[in-house]
Amino acid sequence: MSLPTKTREYRLPQYDGFHNLTLQESRMQPPTSNEVLIKVHAVSLQYRDLLIARGVYAVDVKDKVIPGSDFGGEIVALGPDIHGWDIGDRVMSNFAIDHLFGDPTPELKRSHLGAPIDGVLTEYKILPAHCLVRIPEHLSYEEASTLPCAALTAYAALMGPVPLKGGDTVLILGTGGVSMFGLQFAAASGATVIVTSSSDEKLRIAAKLGAKHLINYRRTPDWDKEVLRLTNGRGVDHVLEVGGEGTLNKSIASVRMAGNLNIIGIVAGPGDVSGLRLKVLLNAINLRGIVVGSRAQFEDMNRLITATSLRPVIGKVFKFEELREAYEYLDSQKHVGKVVVKVSKD
Amino acid sequence: MSLPTKTREYRLPQYDGFHNLTLQESRMQPPTSNEVLIKVHAVSLQYRDLLIARGVYAVDVKDKVIPGSDFGGEIVALGPDIHGWDIGDRVMSNFAIDHLFGDPTPELKRSHLGAPIDGVLTEYKILPAHCLVRIPEHLSYEEASTLPCAALTAYAALMGPVPLKGGDTVLILGTGGVSMFGLQFAAASGATVIVTSSSDEKLRIAAKLGAKHLINYRRTPDWDKEVLRLTNGRGVDHVLEVGGEGTLNKSIASVRMAGNLNIIGIVAGPGDVSGLRLKVLLNAINLRGIVVGSRAQFEDMNRLITATSLRPVIGKVFKFEELREAYEYLDSQKHVGKVVVKVSKD
Amino acid sequence: MSLPTKTREYRLPQYDGFHNLTLQESRMQPPTSNEVLIKVHAVSLQYRDLLIARGVYAVDVKDKVIPGSDFGGEIVALGPDIHGWDIGDRVMSNFAIDHLFGDPTPELKRSHLGAPIDGVLTEYKILPAHCLVRIPEHLSYEEASTLPCAALTAYAALMGPVPLKGGDTVLILGTGGVSMFGLQFAAASGATVIVTSSSDEKLRIAAKLGAKHLINYRRTPDWDKEVLRLTNGRGVDHVLEVGGEGTLNKSIASVRMAGNLNIIGIVAGPGDVSGLRLKVLLNAINLRGIVVGSRAQFEDMNRLITATSLRPVIGKVFKFEELREAYEYLDSQKHVGKVVVKVSKD
Amino acid sequence: MSLPTKTREYRLPQYDGFHNLTLQESRMQPPTSNEVLIKVHAVSLQYRDLLIARGVYAVDVKDKVIPGSDFGGEIVALGPDIHGWDIGDRVMSNFAIDHLFGDPTPELKRSHLGAPIDGVLTEYKILPAHCLVRIPEHLSYEEASTLPCAALTAYAALMGPVPLKGGDTVLILGTGGVSMFGLQFAAASGATVIVTSSSDEKLRIAAKLGAKHLINYRRTPDWDKEVLRLTNGRGVDHVLEVGGEGTLNKSIASVRMAGNLNIIGIVAGPGDVSGLRLKVLLNAINLRGIVVGSRAQFEDMNRLITATSLRPVIGKVFKFEELREAYEYLDSQKHVGKVVVKVSKD
Repeated sequence: MSLPTKTREYRLPQYDGFHNLTLQESRMQPPTSNEVLIKVHAVSLQYRDLLIARGVYAVDVKDKVIPGSDFGGEIVALGPDIHGWDIGDRVMSNFAIDHLFGDPTPELKRSHLGAPIDGVLTEYKILPAHCLVRIPEHLSYEEASTLPCAALTAYAALMGPVPLKGGDTVLILGTGGVSMFGLQFAAASGATVIVTSSSDEKLRIAAKLGAKHLINYRRTPDWDKEVLRLTNGRGVDHVLEVGGEGTLNKSIASVRMAGNLNIIGIVAGPGDVSGLRLKVLLNAINLRGIVVGSRAQFEDMNRLITATSLRPVIGKVFKFEELREAYEYLDSQKHVGKVVVKVSKD
Repeated sequence: MSLPTKTREYRLPQYDGFHNLTLQESRMQPPTSNEVLIKVHAVSLQYRDLLIARGVYAVDVKDKVIPGSDFGGEIVALGPDIHGWDIGDRVMSNFAIDHLFGDPTPELKRSHLGAPIDGVLTEYKILPAHCLVRIPEHLSYEEASTLPCAALTAYAALMGPVPLKGGDTVLILGTGGVSMFGLQFAAASGATVIVTSSSDEKLRIAAKLGAKHLINYRRTPDWDKEVLRLTNGRGVDHVLEVGGEGTLNKSIASVRMAGNLNIIGIVAGPGDVSGLRLKVLLNAINLRGIVVGSRAQFEDMNRLITATSLRPVIGKVFKFEELREAYEYLDSQKHVGKVVVKVSKD
Repeated sequence: MSLPTKTREYRLPQYDGFHNLTLQESRMQPPTSNEVLIKVHAVSLQYRDLLIARGVYAVDVKDKVIPGSDFGGEIVALGPDIHGWDIGDRVMSNFAIDHLFGDPTPELKRSHLGAPIDGVLTEYKILPAHCLVRIPEHLSYEEASTLPCAALTAYAALMGPVPLKGGDTVLILGTGGVSMFGLQFAAASGATVIVTSSSDEKLRIAAKLGAKHLINYRRTPDWDKEVLRLTNGRGVDHVLEVGGEGTLNKSIASVRMAGNLNIIGIVAGPGDVSGLRLKVLLNAINLRGIVVGSRAQFEDMNRLITATSLRPVIGKVFKFEELREAYEYLDSQKHVGKVVVKVSKD
Repeated sequence: MSLPTKTREYRLPQYDGFHNLTLQESRMQPPTSNEVLIKVHAVSLQYRDLLIARGVYAVDVKDKVIPGSDFGGEIVALGPDIHGWDIGDRVMSNFAIDHLFGDPTPELKRSHLGAPIDGVLTEYKILPAHCLVRIPEHLSYEEASTLPCAALTAYAALMGPVPLKGGDTVLILGTGGVSMFGLQFAAASGATVIVTSSSDEKLRIAAKLGAKHLINYRRTPDWDKEVLRLTNGRGVDHVLEVGGEGTLNKSIASVRMAGNLNIIGIVAGPGDVSGLRLKVLLNAINLRGIVVGSRAQFEDMNRLITATSLRPVIGKVFKFEELREAYEYLDSQKHVGKVVVKVSKD
């Protein structure tokens, strides 16, 4: 195969909405040193992609950025110093390309794909080899594209300093992308999983993915009491808390003494934390803010995904040319599972 | 219920074989302080019980010991200072009754049931509350009686300083009691399990319990090469090595670089360790001798057993009066799964 | 030595202040089963002892309790089933006598010395052997009496799920009993320690105990900014936060991304948590409520104390007959280090 | 500063001894992509450098290799995609430049500096940024050059799956480079250290570096018994075993039940392992082969070195032009501490 010399890529010339997304063509250079050239096959969208397009993302975004951070692709050319990778290898990248191991640091925000550096909504992409991870064999490019943010955030949340152990009970709030992965990882690891949702249909999907106990919080608004009942009054070992109006106090009430409350994203509403500190203290809870994980964690996660033949839940797949529709669909929050854009034709 | 004042118990008046096992009656005292009185329902036998009866056990055995260490029973009376336990609670005991947490120590050998202190082949038994663990709800007394030695040894082996993680590949040698539990714990925790045996029938049972890859070492004497093939040349993360002629070098060849070789029991044969040190060093292996675990680990294990509804494999159940036949059957090694003695009539 | 048949003990006939403390005599029974009889040599007082005397402690307190939880004593008699302990052994007890290992649970509150069960402000005390820990050889009874609550709380805070490692930077708030131990443990473990206080004299003591950086928060009210300056803008790895008006937000500002904020006791004032959740989330902090530790942690702590010849800081020692004066002195908060009551004459 | 266009470098045209070391000049390219150009200031020599020069190293060595793996240097130019590093930054590299985190793997042997890829005995060196670590501020280039192999091996040995904790007792065999670092790391972390040597002079140096107990194994050939005496019969928690005739059995006798025996390098002599397996099993020891560590561990180690102001022990410093003399001195084994070559003139 001769190397591509051009790529079609989306850029955001302005930051007041995703209607600005513009497809254009640009020239490609061959990879140098430890770089690889990747043919991007599929990209999954995150809630953060909406925030970036609207100019309200918390991390700096470069001028006219190529958005998108999560992809599944294929190596089509190798820089001269590469070893350990071959042409044809199927790869993903860590979201923060320099977050190789250990805790997140403020400096790593400079290496977020699709924000301070150009992202992956492009047909071809050059990346340094140190950010690459291999796609599990049983997954398609579309499935693989869902892992870097959604899956790794769930994994980092549950496998942190007090990693979920077989035998734990885990409470998963909601059925969004991160929650679905959290449910699957917990069930595959020998935990008992409780899931909450406002939709019986979504709860049925959760049950198929391994949830043992289902709580419709519309019908059971005091879901924390139901969690305590299901755990003989003890509470759960881990909560995967994805935020939302008024959930935090109930999550705290649901966790066992010295249990782990893993919080993702921005919890809405300022009015609901009365008593928070007191409960955390008296109940000796570990309250932990979560950001996405490292490449080291990504590789551990992939081993779990491979061993348990775990498959991501995909909501809907759009064509590369339908990117604005994909953003719109994501924004509508109608979906169960991830929204994916198919970039390549093959 | 009025307290029992007598108990029928087995003793070993001499130590040259299990034909010495003698059933006799003795008086019971009520429990004091932090003690409980337990009605013993079922006892499982260990290979060590054979060694003790033959006078070749490595740990001191008291004169005329009541043998047996692993039971499932029911609390029928409480000492005056007990809190946290009630009459009717279904319980087991840790094998080393003072091994509450942390690493084993030589001193703990003084607290092995059925050796330096009297064991549990008796209708009623007084024990201090600190050694008790609760029987998982879904298990019978017979099933529970198999956990204290066989299951906890497997759990301690796999969940040590480098605990098995979801995604690991685990090699289980054979289909004895410890191996069966190791297989079930690994599979329930999200690992890929490889099992070796000389019997296709036993391998079929292993497959039902969750093994993904089966190796008949009669037909595949170079099973280490098969393990490497199954792991793309990498080797496994954990080996559960239960000893036997000539297995150690093959186990070392089967484990990945910096992997974990957990060895239980006395490896037979002196002639096969040439090159052992060199391989351990060059391959940076963790070689770990295993003895049974602590009460802390027992409780963790029970949580895994409960969450995954795991059931022990029982080979054959004998009556209390058939104890010598049970020892004989154990000695014959015909069984798959554990040999259990039903002590109570109910 | 003949066994004591009587003991002089303090009791609280009413709960409206420590003026109720009444010294009386009662009869002693010999120890049974796994119990030991202990001659109490010294007792250290905690802030919780003041709360109990005033009837405002959060845990249930029995009628006419013998107060006091932390002692150094000597075994003078053994129950018939004791092994591993001898007459003359110097011992302490875990504060929650049944908290042997693992996380705290609500049930363990039933086993708090000096609250739901009688405490140790008595000349002789019977305890079950399972709660005992050995006094490090280089410590006196007075020094040993300071360890069970103050030292173990500091140890449990710093050596939790993300244990302090050599090379970490640790921020210690204040110079109270827990803080002093935290400082000593961190410095002895190879950490860089920053201490805050309102008193230069107390800071000088902290420097002698191993603190590298000292901040007088009277002169440097924006001490969080000073902490950031001292850590090149990064923040500390661990905070030992003992509460107090307005410290929590500054503590959060002082901890590095994904760092550990270990909070002890009840944080005063409801008005200062605006922005708490947001900061915890964006900065991915581990916020952890701390209660005292287990016997397993107590033994680990004692090994560190022994290896580094660490000595507790004692503020003032009172006679057994001066117990009310000791409570009064504790209440005055004039002291640096622990307030100790010498119980025995020898 | 204008970029260097040439560098003087040593190469090994043949592999039958270090007399082949040849200094020559070659051209430099500017760094591309994620590369940096480093001015090498100092290089420390390892025992492996002797093995490579003699053609007996276990890992593949390229034709006419530039030898040397451990350096302290300064960044003098940045590739276009570098962020997080500046000109003037003082840096070292991980020995296996691609070993970023996690366990060693066979593939990583392809990235060993000075063997399959060119090393650092050169005035200027281009390296990818992902292998770099910062030099602790208080260390000179000469001191820094000793860290990548000797210090990191000691750190990886003691801080593995069962990391040394404050309060542990550690046995260090000998006073070579790795042993000296092991001693310093253990003492700085709150451990009690025992050191063996055949030389009282070397033991005096060990005492200054923090060893509490010294054993001259010439005068005390049964040093394992002395270790047991010093630990009240219990044995040590960790052994740092660097090999040598007949030490392994004594090391096994010196470690406590369930303790950690960390073995570095090739243990000499085939005749001394009778009973090895039995002891490992009965005593439940963790026997662990050690190779050097990852960049993640390197960074952790540097934090400990910085916090405790730890300084490496340098034996002798040679000029760049005296490289053969430096190899010869290393070969003589007269030195205490590391042999360093000063590459730059400043």
